[in-house]
Amino acid sequence: MTLRIYLSGEIHTDWREQIVAGAEGLDVAFDSPVTDHAASDDCGVAILGAEDQKFWHDHKGAKVNAIRTRKGIEDADIVVVRFGEKYKQWNAAFDAGYAAALGKSIIVLSQPEHQHALKEVHAAALAVAEEPKQVVEILRYVLTGALPG
Amino acid sequence: MTLRIYLSGEIHTDWREQIVAGAEGLDVAFDSPVTDHAASDDCGVAILGAEDQKFWHDHKGAKVNAIRTRKGIEDADIVVVRFGEKYKQWNAAFDAGYAAALGKSIIVLSQPEHQHALKEVHAAALAVAEEPKQVVEILRYVLTGALPG
Amino acid sequence: MTLRIYLSGEIHTDWREQIVAGAEGLDVAFDSPVTDHAASDDCGVAILGAEDQKFWHDHKGAKVNAIRTRKGIEDADIVVVRFGEKYKQWNAAFDAGYAAALGKSIIVLSQPEHQHALKEVHAAALAVAEEPKQVVEILRYVLTGALPG
Amino acid sequence: MTLRIYLSGEIHTDWREQIVAGAEGLDVAFDSPVTDHAASDDCGVAILGAEDQKFWHDHKGAKVNAIRTRKGIEDADIVVVRFGEKYKQWNAAFDAGYAAALGKSIIVLSQPEHQHALKEVHAAALAVAEEPKQVVEILRYVLTGALPG
Amino acid sequence: MTLRIYLSGEIHTDWREQIVAGAEGLDVAFDSPVTDHAASDDCGVAILGAEDQKFWHDHKGAKVNAIRTRKGIEDADIVVVRFGEKYKQWNAAFDAGYAAALGKSIIVLSQPEHQHALKEVHAAALAVAEEPKQVVEILRYVLTGALPG
Amino acid sequence: MTLRIYLSGEIHTDWREQIVAGAEGLDVAFDSPVTDHAASDDCGVAILGAEDQKFWHDHKGAKVNAIRTRKGIEDADIVVVRFGEKYKQWNAAFDAGYAAALGKSIIVLSQPEHQHALKEVHAAALAVAEEPKQVVEILRYVLTGALPG
Amino acid sequence: MTLRIYLSGEIHTDWREQIVAGAEGLDVAFDSPVTDHAASDDCGVAILGAEDQKFWHDHKGAKVNAIRTRKGIEDADIVVVRFGEKYKQWNAAFDAGYAAALGKSIIVLSQPEHQHALKEVHAAALAVAEEPKQVVEILRYVLTGALPG
Amino acid sequence: MTLRIYLSGEIHTDWREQIVAGAEGLDVAFDSPVTDHAASDDCGVAILGAEDQKFWHDHKGAKVNAIRTRKGIEDADIVVVRFGEKYKQWNAAFDAGYAAALGKSIIVLSQPEHQHALKEVHAAALAVAEEPKQVVEILRYVLTGALPG
Repeated sequence: MTLRIYLSGEIHTDWREQIVAGAEGLDVAFDSPVTDHAASDDCGVAILGAEDQKFWHDHKGAKVNAIRTRKGIEDADIVVVRFGEKYKQWNAAFDAGYAAALGKSIIVLSQPEHQHALKEVHAAALAVAEEPKQVVEILRYVLTGALPG
Repeated sequence: MTLRIYLSGEIHTDWREQIVAGAEGLDVAFDSPVTDHAASDDCGVAILGAEDQKFWHDHKGAKVNAIRTRKGIEDADIVVVRFGEKYKQWNAAFDAGYAAALGKSIIVLSQPEHQHALKEVHAAALAVAEEPKQVVEILRYVLTGALPG
Repeated sequence: MTLRIYLSGEIHTDWREQIVAGAEGLDVAFDSPVTDHAASDDCGVAILGAEDQKFWHDHKGAKVNAIRTRKGIEDADIVVVRFGEKYKQWNAAFDAGYAAALGKSIIVLSQPEHQHALKEVHAAALAVAEEPKQVVEILRYVLTGALPG
Repeated sequence: MTLRIYLSGEIHTDWREQIVAGAEGLDVAFDSPVTDHAASDDCGVAILGAEDQKFWHDHKGAKVNAIRTRKGIEDADIVVVRFGEKYKQWNAAFDAGYAAALGKSIIVLSQPEHQHALKEVHAAALAVAEEPKQVVEILRYVLTGALPG
Repeated sequence: MTLRIYLSGEIHTDWREQIVAGAEGLDVAFDSPVTDHAASDDCGVAILGAEDQKFWHDHKGAKVNAIRTRKGIEDADIVVVRFGEKYKQWNAAFDAGYAAALGKSIIVLSQPEHQHALKEVHAAALAVAEEPKQVVEILRYVLTGALPG
Repeated sequence: MTLRIYLSGEIHTDWREQIVAGAEGLDVAFDSPVTDHAASDDCGVAILGAEDQKFWHDHKGAKVNAIRTRKGIEDADIVVVRFGEKYKQWNAAFDAGYAAALGKSIIVLSQPEHQHALKEVHAAALAVAEEPKQVVEILRYVLTGALPG
Repeated sequence: MTLRIYLSGEIHTDWREQIVAGAEGLDVAFDSPVTDHAASDDCGVAILGAEDQKFWHDHKGAKVNAIRTRKGIEDADIVVVRFGEKYKQWNAAFDAGYAAALGKSIIVLSQPEHQHALKEVHAAALAVAEEPKQVVEILRYVLTGALPG
Repeated sequence: MTLRIYLSGEIHTDWREQIVAGAEGLDVAFDSPVTDHAASDDCGVAILGAEDQKFWHDHKGAKVNAIRTRKGIEDADIVVVRFGEKYKQWNAAFDAGYAAALGKSIIVLSQPEHQHALKEVHAAALAVAEEPKQVVEILRYVLTGALPG
């Protein structure tokens, strides 16, 4: 069994690197969005031409990014969605809803202070973790049956 | 053609009432989540028994509410998702993602200050409006071909 | 919003009648398997001809019953699965799995002594109740937003 | 033709090992749940944190196990479901229902004394066997056309 | 519960009329192909223009008839497929395969002398009957729980 | 059997009116796009605000129109696609492709001079007609078995 | 592009061998049913135990064979269905219907004398051939663009 | 992440070669229709026998080509549809509609003078480009996050 995992959400900390490093040796394949914030914001106009209005600037970029996001979620067995400390992060919640409707296994990575605001997302998840390490432990258990420590 | 519409998102202003009133006479049917905030928060424990921990209190409630939310979205032709001024509103973005994956027509109702944060949600929508009146005008046009004023 | 509900599982007590009576006045439609135990066991051979072996006797009957069961589950918005005190009740758990794979909202009606044995079924449910009255309260809340008491 | 097979159900005897050993040389790939009973029961709390109540202890574990179970069943061409001598084994019947709704080929491995209780599950199966050896013979025949003896 | 039934296959005897008459009073709706043999053969060229070659004459007609057949099967809960005494009747077996792939409940109406030739079709059916009366009895049982006699 | 029919394509002649009038008395329900050319072109900006660039002016309108088009095609049993004398009519061919992927029955209404250019669309259709009257005759035959004349 | 092809139908001539040999060097993978007639008829009872009645003898075998047939058709890009000179061959037509409902590309291999009886099957096919050589030519053209001669 | 891309549409310029050459070194796989115009037009009759009428000549060919087109689109993550200067190109728009209904990511390659006529197709696309080079840049960005220049 190979697990294909999409790492969605917050792009300002190294949680993806922690999970990928921790999962070394496991039969897993990771995908994620483009995490270079500037490139992600400007990809639409950089490739397809400038826009005067911010709405269409963002629109073009969001659609180009959607090519990668949809492919990543649709191919995934597990979608891990990380909610960070800052920003609205509606794209993370959107990805979670998209994954839920496709019947993907969802793992949410979030902090206790967001518990109430995330209750609908948590209710659709098969696991709610606080630390990247726990995601790695879930992957290891699911693939090998081994529990931590 | 009858349009079935699910009104998702913010529950603190009367935007739903404005749309329903404005759409009087059109061949439409509206569904929405339970908008009584207290009932929505407590439905799980009120019916299925109290919980010591807030996480499970919320979890039970979110799952009972999901019975209605899923039915509403899955039956809908159009999902209108309203993002308000306050709160994280991750459930609104989650509903939008869920609706997108099911191929529903999405109308987002949001304010200009949230434009950048909502760019992925906007990219999945067929219309982005600022006022409930515009949603009504879309419904009227889609059903009758008549444009405003 | 009309809810269509399939009442699956145990056929020796009046839990279905309690739910149907309790839900009077709500916008619901109920389906259920044939609950006449003898008819359910013998329908295959009674209509399609006798069998020497018990396996095929049962096989013919189970398939005729499947016409009704599948229709009931596939049409349902909510599948309520009741596990009783006695018997293996594998057909109830089978219906729950079938409903889960179709993405139906599942309510399990079971007793605390079966909690551990039902943990996988509970994990796929949106509500776990002990009393038929609680199922009625969920239906009322989902349709009207009203909580008990 | 490669057959992907999920081995669901009873975890207290070596039936999985018998099938895997017997199928050596055939173009098959096997998946199965975690069969370490203690790990399977405790995986949720061991990774995601302890719970005071048994219900939530089990709930967390059942959901983590569901990541593996769903992946295994959804990827499978054939789901073999084994019903043993003891316990309620509702998870086995749940898996069978889940597999049936997805249109998977189902092979049931059960004993004659459970025939009547399993009639609905048997009716959804393409083969009902009593011995692991018969499952191997089916796999060999399906892949190579060779019959036993 | 309303059952929608498509009556496929042989068009030279009155088996459809027997079933429809026998089912009077039950909550059923029947569809069937055009059973006027000449109209069915010629509908394509009669409406869309003559063809020199028999292949295209038949092709045009078969496609026009497919509009009705597909609609009938796709809307049906139960597909009854009748195999008669004469002709190849490949369209009946084709309809059965089409219905099977869509997960419809199939009832086959056939004679013992065709048992071996129909074994694959029978294996996909939930009931194999010899007389139209038995089909009526199945419908009555499925809808009301009442057995004959 | 009620047939739901979406009338897609050319909006400059009265072919829709001819079909609707000809089908009077048949059990059919028709949907179609907004056929007021000016309203259809401007609906996006008229409701959601003006755009400087023609591309986004058209984009907003095309998306609002898509709400109606998708609903119409997805609800339809039959999609009739009319190709006229003038213009590129790529939206008509797009609708035909969309309908084909959803497995809808397609009737193409086109002229002999476009035969070669439409060969891929014709190949996906169940009927190719030249006159609205023939579409009516198909509907009448499919619903009643009656041929013209 | 690799094409996966299921070769269904008649098992008494060497048409499969001709196609496989002719397609040597092309990027294709072939599956087919078990073509050993005796093994195919007896596989059920040989593995799962004898039956007194011919119906159940055949039923068990047909279901075991269905494991292979469904897998073969569901994995295929193209289903080639061969109708021979003799027998009812309802299983071939059943496979064609099954493949059609799944949206597979169908190639029928049949003789002119069966043209009328096969008109519904032909209408669902993308090609109707008389010789295995033509099937090979189609495969070569589809994969390489090269025409015969 | 490997991207599978179908290159649909115009066959008279070297835009496909430009994209394939530009994408060298990226993790991509390209499919496309047969681009030999004469072979594409005649494949049906060359393999399956001559036809007197142009309609059936084209019909046979279009169906053989559909085997490749459907496979290519259904396997694709991204469908690039190129509209050229000349011809009706209804097959390109048909492919775009087909891809849209399957939820594929669509990139349209078109010229400004066709903007208005393509507005419905553009509205279903995630990117609208004018030059093959831009398609390559999108592929590079989606796979590696690198922007041009």
